[in-house]
This record gives sequence, structure tokens and C-alpha cells, in this order.
Amino acid sequence: MTFFTPGPAALYPAFEKHLKSFMDRQLGSISHRSQAYRDLHQFTVEQLRTLLSVPDTHQILFLGSASEIWERILLNCVEHESFHLVNGSFSQKFRDYADALRKYTHGFEKPMGEGFEATEITVPEYAEIICATHNETSAGVQMQVADIHKLKTKYPDKLLAVDMVSSAPYPALDYGLVDTAFFSVQKAFGMPAGLGVWIVNEQCLSKAERLKQYENLTIGAHHDLPTLWKFAQKHETPATPNVMAIYILGKIAEDFNRIGIDTLRKETEHKAGLLYNFIKKHQNFEASVKEPRLQSQTVVVANTKIDSSAVIGKLKEKGMVIGSGYGEFKSSQVRIANFPATSVAQTDGLVKALERLF
Amino acid sequence: MTFFTPGPAALYPAFEKHLKSFMDRQLGSISHRSQAYRDLHQFTVEQLRTLLSVPDTHQILFLGSASEIWERILLNCVEHESFHLVNGSFSQKFRDYADALRKYTHGFEKPMGEGFEATEITVPEYAEIICATHNETSAGVQMQVADIHKLKTKYPDKLLAVDMVSSAPYPALDYGLVDTAFFSVQKAFGMPAGLGVWIVNEQCLSKAERLKQYENLTIGAHHDLPTLWKFAQKHETPATPNVMAIYILGKIAEDFNRIGIDTLRKETEHKAGLLYNFIKKHQNFEASVKEPRLQSQTVVVANTKIDSSAVIGKLKEKGMVIGSGYGEFKSSQVRIANFPATSVAQTDGLVKALERLF
Repeated sequence: MTFFTPGPAALYPAFEKHLKSFMDRQLGSISHRSQAYRDLHQFTVEQLRTLLSVPDTHQILFLGSASEIWERILLNCVEHESFHLVNGSFSQKFRDYADALRKYTHGFEKPMGEGFEATEITVPEYAEIICATHNETSAGVQMQVADIHKLKTKYPDKLLAVDMVSSAPYPALDYGLVDTAFFSVQKAFGMPAGLGVWIVNEQCLSKAERLKQYENLTIGAHHDLPTLWKFAQKHETPATPNVMAIYILGKIAEDFNRIGIDTLRKETEHKAGLLYNFIKKHQNFEASVKEPRLQSQTVVVANTKIDSSAVIGKLKEKGMVIGSGYGEFKSSQVRIANFPATSVAQTDGLVKALERLF
Repeated sequence: MTFFTPGPAALYPAFEKHLKSFMDRQLGSISHRSQAYRDLHQFTVEQLRTLLSVPDTHQILFLGSASEIWERILLNCVEHESFHLVNGSFSQKFRDYADALRKYTHGFEKPMGEGFEATEITVPEYAEIICATHNETSAGVQMQVADIHKLKTKYPDKLLAVDMVSSAPYPALDYGLVDTAFFSVQKAFGMPAGLGVWIVNEQCLSKAERLKQYENLTIGAHHDLPTLWKFAQKHETPATPNVMAIYILGKIAEDFNRIGIDTLRKETEHKAGLLYNFIKKHQNFEASVKEPRLQSQTVVVANTKIDSSAVIGKLKEKGMVIGSGYGEFKSSQVRIANFPATSVAQTDGLVKALERLF
């Protein structure tokens, strides 16, 4: 069965090989305070640094999930007010987390399926952080990296946080302009869920250290940024980490580096092109996002005239699994993940099957 | 190499088989909102319920780690004040978390290696929760289950939280008296780290719901108890969970249930007896905990006249790995895990090797 689901997604083909080497080397039993662990941790961080061009001003930290990272950013980097670009369920949840943490939130909201451009965004004066979602998985909308960067140029004194959960390593973020970004491994890295990766810079750390001094405020006890940072400097984590996932992530990042990030990005765009071309010319499907520059390259969402369960059911008989729409669009849309785990040939096979079936 | 390290510890022998079945069934790619996932989740919860005799008044929840659960208990179940029994590094960290969350903490402290009895404990009037550690891994001290239960009988209006990270499923807790308890899977369940299990009752839920109404307080945004509980009722988690670990935990709990919890507990005590007997009669070693009823059955700690690195090094040559002392006792103590993953024969082999070598 080939999974084109948006996450948990298809496992990366080399995943099983790396899992086997983890078991063969008995890494499941090593102490997280040993040199063997520190070497493993450092390897993964270095591979990710290379892959995503993360400079030394930023640390790369390992947490339980991207949802946990939403919370940690808001606790550690916001005293009073946050600003959110909201155009779907996941960007909305980021804002909901801020509300639950008793922050005062501002939002610029658009209906699902619509996207944002830098020129139309005004950030309120007292907002301390701008929370942008590079790829809104629920709706298949992406924000152009150039627009994300412009936000920081326009508002240099505010922190900029980028959710790239369902797109990393595709977006070529400039970490000279992005203060913090994060993703989870069950999307484009083709791993089972259970690990979130937090990229975060010294400005965020300074802010967390300042907030920690305030007696009426908490930055959290578990996974607070100053403690995570201190341990990361010696290639460790404060609590026992998901060593298996950290090891395999490093190996897959190494595989990605061997292929080369430019090749990976071009392949992503090529495969997305195959899918959008099919959707464009087929009468039963249409892209849910009209504007081509806002169409997600990593999660392709199509409105379908046939009930999504019928599309999904027929494809399943051919050994292919795609996702339903999200929430209220469950039956009227399908979502097709386009991650490195699925090859050009497999994407081609999916398009051919769709052509034959509908 | 056989690992007798206190965690991450030896993998349970059946772990690899369960991992293979996870891969063969492509469970790494299933949606966490599918019936396939809900069935898997429910299976694990039911196996744990049977194994630990958890009644329906309590939910069993899955989080990232036991450290995360420390934080979630304090955020969700404490408005102002908590009380902690502290006799080592891990019970101290539970209290440190409460301080970081701006709670007012009370503690009854003893030096490492000493234990607690119910009769000597007085809980301050305004403390809302009693935080006890069943097994203090850093020092090898356990608290008798009967003493833990007496605390609740003596203070029925306070919540009782039991850290059983490095001993579950050994302690036979009575959940009629324990409001919440928790553990992580890299100890006695013989799995790689990356999953914490939180057992929690309706009293804790009610308290969290009440605190959520207070405008000046936060119970957290990620993994807050009311949200975790709501999803657990439909056999789901709020965010994408560590499906692999949840699946394998269910399978290992099923293995444990087949052996039978009484047999497992007796075997644990038998193997601990072999280790303590050796330590008692050998001139170079002595139990760090003098009082037999306070000696941990799951993590045996011995003072050693030979530097611990020499003991560890020589055993390693024989294919066996034991742990060093914790913190300041790193070189003057050794710690030997006694979990179900290591058999009576292996424990016997370790004792024989120690007898020959020293």
C-alpha cells in the first residue's frame, strides 16, 4: 500500500534500514548521558543544520511534537501579546494555544483556502511575535517564503515564528530573518510520529531568560527554552529523549543531504506539477486554492464532485491511499501528500490511476 | 551485550518482534483519526488496565515523557500549593517543576538513601496534592505501597500523585486511594524512550475543569487534562501521538498479562534477592539503603569500595552493562536495574560474574 496521506504519511523508503541499524547497534539501551548518545545527537543536529542552512545563531532542539512547540514558543517568547495569521485549522490552533495560556491575541483571519501576502498585513503595535504558517495542511495553502521574510524586514523588532510542520525541508527559509521555526517528523521526513524539531535563535532565548525573572509569569517547567538550550550546547536533552527518532531523523537528513536540497525541492515541485496538471484538466476535480503561487507544493488539496470516500475507496483497491478533506470539507475534498517518500514514478502512477478511474 | 542499566534499559526480548509486526502492518502511516488507530489505542489501554488493575474512574493517557506529566499534574491539579516527599534527584525535580510553575511548594526532605514511612509525614493544611515517588531511581529507595495508601487514608481531601517511573508495573497500587500515577516506557517495559503514561482520575479532572475557569491561571494549552480526557473517551489523543510506542506498549503489556502480574512481581523480588544477597556477603559492596523494606526491588544500588568505572569496565568485557551511581555518587556507587527484560538466568549470570571478578 502506498500512502499519499498528509500525515502520518508514507514512511521514507530508507526508514526500515535505519531502524534495523538502530536495533543492531543496541542504541535503544544507551544512556542519554553517555558519549555515544551525544555523538548521535550531534550528528542529527549537524545534518539538519546542513539540510536547512541553519546558522550558529540558532539551536536545534528536540521535543515531543510540533503542538508542544506551539506552546513552548508562546510561553517562552510572549509576555502579553501575540499576532497570528489564520487561514485554516492549524494556524487557528496555534492562536487557541495562546488564548489558553492567557496571552492577548490578535489575528488576521481569512477563510480556508485563501492565503496571505506581506503587503496586506499590518501587525499591531504591541504584538511581540508574528506567528505564520508556511503550509496550512487543512486547506492546502502555502505562504511564499519571500512574503514571510518581508514581514521581518517590515517589523524587525518583533519575533517571527514559522510553522513548517507539513512542508519542511521544502521552504528555503532565511534564518537571518526567521527567529524560530519548527516541524514534526511524520510529514516530509517520512517517520512515525513522536518527535518535534524546534529551531530557535538567541533573541528568543534572551526573551525567555528575561521573562523567567518575572515573578508573576511562568515560562513552563518542562522543556523551557533556557534549560533546553543549556543541554543542547552539550548535545543532550533535559529529560530522556526519543533516541530512536532522533537517530533515524539524522540518518534520513543525511540521505536528503546526499540527494541535495535543491534536487529535493525541484522534485517536490515537479511532482506537485503532475498532480495540479491532472486536477486542472479533469472535470471532476478542481484545485481548492485558485492562485497558483498560493497552492501548496507539499499537500495538494482538490475539490471533488464525487464524494471523497468513493475516490479514496477506489484508489485503495489499487494499493494507493490518499487523504480525505479536513473538518467540514471531509467529503467534498481530497488531500494528497507530496513528500520525498513518494517518488516521481509513484506520483505518476497515482495520476494514471485517477485518470483511469474517474 | 546485556543491559542492566536503570534507563534507558534493556529492551524487552519481544520488543523486536512487535516492532516488526508494526512495520509489516504499515501502522506507521495510519491516520490517528482512523478506526484502525482507535482500535490500537483501545487495545493498549485495556491491556494496561488489566495489568495494573486500573478502574473506570481513571483514564489512561499518553504523553511525551514522565517529566512532561510532572508538569501536567501540577498545572492541572494545583491552584496554589503542593507537598513533596523528597529523598533524591527525581523527587527533587518534581518539586522544582512546581516552583518553576509559580506554585508554593512544601517539602519533607531526607538525605539520599533514606526513605519515608506514613506515620512520620505531616502534610500542611493548605497543600492540595501530595507528591510521592514510589521508587527514587537516583538512590535506590522505595516507599512501601502500604505507606503510600495510608497517606490518602490520613488525608482523604488531598489529591495523591505517585511517581512510579522506574518501578511500574511492580507496585500494586490501589487506585481507590491513588488519584494519579505515571511512568515512562524506557524502564520496566523495556522500550526505547519517547512515551509517558498518565493514569488519572475524575477528581483530578474536576479540579482541572475548575481551574480552567479562573482568568488569572492557566492549566496549559498543550495536553491539558480536560482535552486529553475528552479525546481519550473516543480512544484518541489531541495531537498526533507516538503510535509506534503506543502499539508496542500494548503488545508488551499483553505479554506481561500472559505471564501474569503476580508471577512478574514474584520474579522481580526473586531477582532482587539474588542481587542483594550477593551485595550483603561481598566485602567490596554494601547496599546503599540499609533498611530492607526500603530497598528498591527494581533498581538495586550498592556502595562499592572499588571505583564504579572499574566495576563497569570489567563487566562490560563479559558482555554486561550496569549503571554508575547518580550525580555525586557516580564513582562510589553502582546501580543495577532489575526489570522484566532481564531474566533470572541473566541475573544469576551477573552475580556469578561479579563473584568471579571481585
